[in-house]
Amino acid sequence: MNSAINVEIHNRTLIIAFFYVTLVRTLSVIRLKGQADRRLRAGHQWIYSNEVNTDATPLKQFNAGDQVIVETAHGKPIGVAMINPNTLICGRLVSRSTDTVLNKSTIVHRLKIALSLREMSYPEPYYRLVFGDSDGLSGLVVDRFGDILVVQISTAGIERLKDEVIEALQEVVKPSAILMKNDGKMRNVEGLDTYVEEVFGHVPEVVYLKENDVLFQAPVWDGQKTGWFYDHRENRKTMQTFCSGKRVLDVFSYVGGWGVQAAAAGATDVTFIDASEAALDHVEANLALNQYEGESNLMQGDAFEAMNALIEEKQRFDVVVMDPPAFIARRKDIKAGEGAYHRANQLAMRLVAKGGILVSGSCSMHLETGRLHDIVRSNSRQLERFSQLIYRGTQAPDHPVHPAIPETEYLKALFYRVHNNMGL
Amino acid sequence: MNSAINVEIHNRTLIIAFFYVTLVRTLSVIRLKGQADRRLRAGHQWIYSNEVNTDATPLKQFNAGDQVIVETAHGKPIGVAMINPNTLICGRLVSRSTDTVLNKSTIVHRLKIALSLREMSYPEPYYRLVFGDSDGLSGLVVDRFGDILVVQISTAGIERLKDEVIEALQEVVKPSAILMKNDGKMRNVEGLDTYVEEVFGHVPEVVYLKENDVLFQAPVWDGQKTGWFYDHRENRKTMQTFCSGKRVLDVFSYVGGWGVQAAAAGATDVTFIDASEAALDHVEANLALNQYEGESNLMQGDAFEAMNALIEEKQRFDVVVMDPPAFIARRKDIKAGEGAYHRANQLAMRLVAKGGILVSGSCSMHLETGRLHDIVRSNSRQLERFSQLIYRGTQAPDHPVHPAIPETEYLKALFYRVHNNMGL
Repeated sequence: MNSAINVEIHNRTLIIAFFYVTLVRTLSVIRLKGQADRRLRAGHQWIYSNEVNTDATPLKQFNAGDQVIVETAHGKPIGVAMINPNTLICGRLVSRSTDTVLNKSTIVHRLKIALSLREMSYPEPYYRLVFGDSDGLSGLVVDRFGDILVVQISTAGIERLKDEVIEALQEVVKPSAILMKNDGKMRNVEGLDTYVEEVFGHVPEVVYLKENDVLFQAPVWDGQKTGWFYDHRENRKTMQTFCSGKRVLDVFSYVGGWGVQAAAAGATDVTFIDASEAALDHVEANLALNQYEGESNLMQGDAFEAMNALIEEKQRFDVVVMDPPAFIARRKDIKAGEGAYHRANQLAMRLVAKGGILVSGSCSMHLETGRLHDIVRSNSRQLERFSQLIYRGTQAPDHPVHPAIPETEYLKALFYRVHNNMGL
Repeated sequence: MNSAINVEIHNRTLIIAFFYVTLVRTLSVIRLKGQADRRLRAGHQWIYSNEVNTDATPLKQFNAGDQVIVETAHGKPIGVAMINPNTLICGRLVSRSTDTVLNKSTIVHRLKIALSLREMSYPEPYYRLVFGDSDGLSGLVVDRFGDILVVQISTAGIERLKDEVIEALQEVVKPSAILMKNDGKMRNVEGLDTYVEEVFGHVPEVVYLKENDVLFQAPVWDGQKTGWFYDHRENRKTMQTFCSGKRVLDVFSYVGGWGVQAAAAGATDVTFIDASEAALDHVEANLALNQYEGESNLMQGDAFEAMNALIEEKQRFDVVVMDPPAFIARRKDIKAGEGAYHRANQLAMRLVAKGGILVSGSCSMHLETGRLHDIVRSNSRQLERFSQLIYRGTQAPDHPVHPAIPETEYLKALFYRVHNNMGL
């Protein structure tokens, strides 16, 4: 080995050793209890507060958002976590080596990997660019509407790195504007205040996007979540297969994600039900954006009442989309929530014309797919319909699921062909 | 009410009463035990031999294929079933009323309903027309290749009605030819012999089909099952999204369902691995049918050995399709089978280029989706890759799932984006 290489290797070793020492010196340590490292080794990234040995390493000594080295019960370091001493999930792993922390450089690296997945999945820049844990950025969500980005931060760890996130997004995506839509409920849990603000450039009242080649405007400032739900994209595309020349009903329509795409796919008649007047105004604008010339019917009000009214009038639809907001927010709501899904889907099934399609969606992480499927089975028996599951949709590829973090999987869209009882 | 109507109603009542008496006189009865009717009331269609009260109604008195009235333990009739006294599943419900049996007329009715689902799902006549229980025709599978039908009968009940099935298919579909591909393993269990024969018209050695606008020839006489697997259609379409300009590997390729569609979607280089020389000949023909001009590489031999050889050569692929034959045929094979899936998927993951796609398929009904997902999670950890589930595919709409019969759901195609460890 010649001496120049030798020196270079020597220098590298020194540099690595220097960084390691620096980190170890800078970062504090939390020690886990017993087997608490197991789930992390299996790939999960969360640490619960009861898994920390607080005698050895009291959580109270830390500030929300600190990054610390995580050790097993035996003192073996396994990585770095952002911590929040005040929450049930008190730690989120940001790296599996002790010489990598989350900073602008690592955020840039992960954004590039996240961007490459979206670019290989979609031809145009309308998608969820970052989906939290699944993209190695726990607590960060970024939706992209062309050159406008809408960001949601839900943890103290990412809030601390807010400037780095903005700079990294500017470097990787080169947007014209960034909106911080920091009004999620999770923020209270993390001890963060809620606010909505432009942090870069100018963000208009509504932004434009394309989904499955259909145009939409979305209310990013005061709409739900980031203003748009990209997660159903593939499911809406599948729905379009069944819409040409058909009557379609979109229950809980919000700004028309399903119904307007049905219209664009050739539906002759689309009915939208939503409680929000403002949402239905956007539906109207979105139909116009796509030069829809068929019939449309906007029903503002309670979805259950509106469906009952349609049943009274003996209205039937070839395609009924039942995609309600999360009826189950927390684990303890499961029983009541399942009842709501049962009732909503039963009304929806009664509105399906013979041989038509029922699309049954759910964004409740706590409602298992199998339970939703069983709700439709049970309704089929009660109403004496012969139902066939023909498509089992989940969240789009820009909402990837982390295989070791089941909490990253939440979306369902089950499609049934519903026929009259045919003797069976 | 005028007297003409009166007479008509009176006549109808007489006719219905006559049929009912005829049926009740013609059909024997089996009586169930205890709560055995519960699963049937919930929508399932199968009766197990240990659920029959054989003291009251000995199964031995019946011939395989008889249709009988099914009664609850309390003597309440709940429908009609085809029975086979010699099999574990001794009864299959064909109707939920005692005045409907399976005969040419009911088969025609159900075929029409089955056909309408396929016609609303696909623009061209290439699909599975009948998928057994899910179409109310337990024991019958029909694949359609334009005007040629390939039929598989797996129960004594349908075998008894073979002529009625053929006549009904002729009436509803008007095919030019029908092949009976009655060589499935289930037939031995049912006490049926195996045979392959033309029962109508002329069926050539290979037939032609289109899937996602890609042309194929399929060996219907001596290929696997009906000669083609339509069940992965939507999954192959999703794969095509990721293939343009890419290197693709199709392991267990059979006649090239995945790899040829990758080629058609613009892959520049496709490698096929299969143990069957004949299958690879069809691959070559199918590439030619689609005027593929990229690189192709046909590897005949054991898939595990072939993958190891590719790893040795440091070959990497942007898309790797691992869609093996069922490694788990029976429940007792689950453990060994899961081991095989683990090894196969590990080799496949090692062959994925940085940031590439792994498609992990399984047609084993006994391998739960969650288990396959966990196998990929575990491989990701062992190989230190960062994997993201981006698509959870199931069987196509022409293989509908009956919501009360979990046995009708079997197919999985999980798509992962596999990146190098990015510090997490």
